[in-house]
Amino acid sequence: MKDPSNPVCRTISTLLSRIGDKWTVLVVQTLGAGPRRFNELRREIPSVSQRMLTLTLRNLERDGLVSRTVTPTIPPRVDYELTELGHSLEKPICGLATWALENVDSIHQAQARFDTEHDKAAAA
Amino acid sequence: MKDPSNPVCRTISTLLSRIGDKWTVLVVQTLGAGPRRFNELRREIPSVSQRMLTLTLRNLERDGLVSRTVTPTIPPRVDYELTELGHSLEKPICGLATWALENVDSIHQAQARFDTEHDKAAAA
Repeated sequence: MKDPSNPVCRTISTLLSRIGDKWTVLVVQTLGAGPRRFNELRREIPSVSQRMLTLTLRNLERDGLVSRTVTPTIPPRVDYELTELGHSLEKPICGLATWALENVDSIHQAQARFDTEHDKAAAA
Repeated sequence: MKDPSNPVCRTISTLLSRIGDKWTVLVVQTLGAGPRRFNELRREIPSVSQRMLTLTLRNLERDGLVSRTVTPTIPPRVDYELTELGHSLEKPICGLATWALENVDSIHQAQARFDTEHDKAAAA
C-alpha cells in the first residue's frame, strides 16, 4: 500500500472500497451466522433494496467470497453461503465494526463540534 | 450490527462505508507515517484528485480523525496529522489491508473463473 500507483496497490484499494461497502459488511456478517436464501437476507437487512442485494451478492460470488447453490425444485431454491475465503474476511471486518462501535460516540461529538465551529465561522 | 434497522447500526454502516473508502484508507495509511502538507499527500497518493483529497480530508477532520493546523506564514502552511482517535483506526484498517494483500491472488483467480463460466453460459 506504500505506492498507490503500483497495480497491486490499486487492486487492493479497489478491493478495500468494495469490502468496506456497507452492504458487503452487512451481508458478510449476516452470512457469518449461516447460509441464507435471498428473501431471508432481504428480511434480515431491511434497508437493502432488491437491486443492491443482487449486485452485492453477485460481486461477492465473483470474488469467491460467497457460493450460490441452486436446488432445482419448483420454484428453484437458491442458497447463499460464505466460502472458506469469505469466512476468513469475517475477522478483519469484525475488527473494523468493533472499532466503529467503540468510537461512534467520539465521532458524533467531533462532528457536532466541527459543525458548530463551521456554522460560527459562516455567520461571522 | 445484528439489527441493521437500529439507528446505531445505521450509523456504524455509514461509518464503515466511509472508513472503507479507498481514499480514506490511503490517507490514513499515509498520515500514519507522520504529519503531511496537502501537496505532500497529493504527491504520495498520485491517483487522488485535488477535489477528492480535499473532500476526504474534510470528512476525516469532521469525524475527529485528522487535525488541521494552519501556520500563518506567507503563503499559509497547512499541516494534516492523525489525532489519537485517527491513530486508533490504523490497526483495524491494517487488518483489512493485510487480508486484502494476502488474498488478492485467490480473488483474482475466482474472478477469472466466474467470468469464464458466465461467458460460456452467455455463448451457450
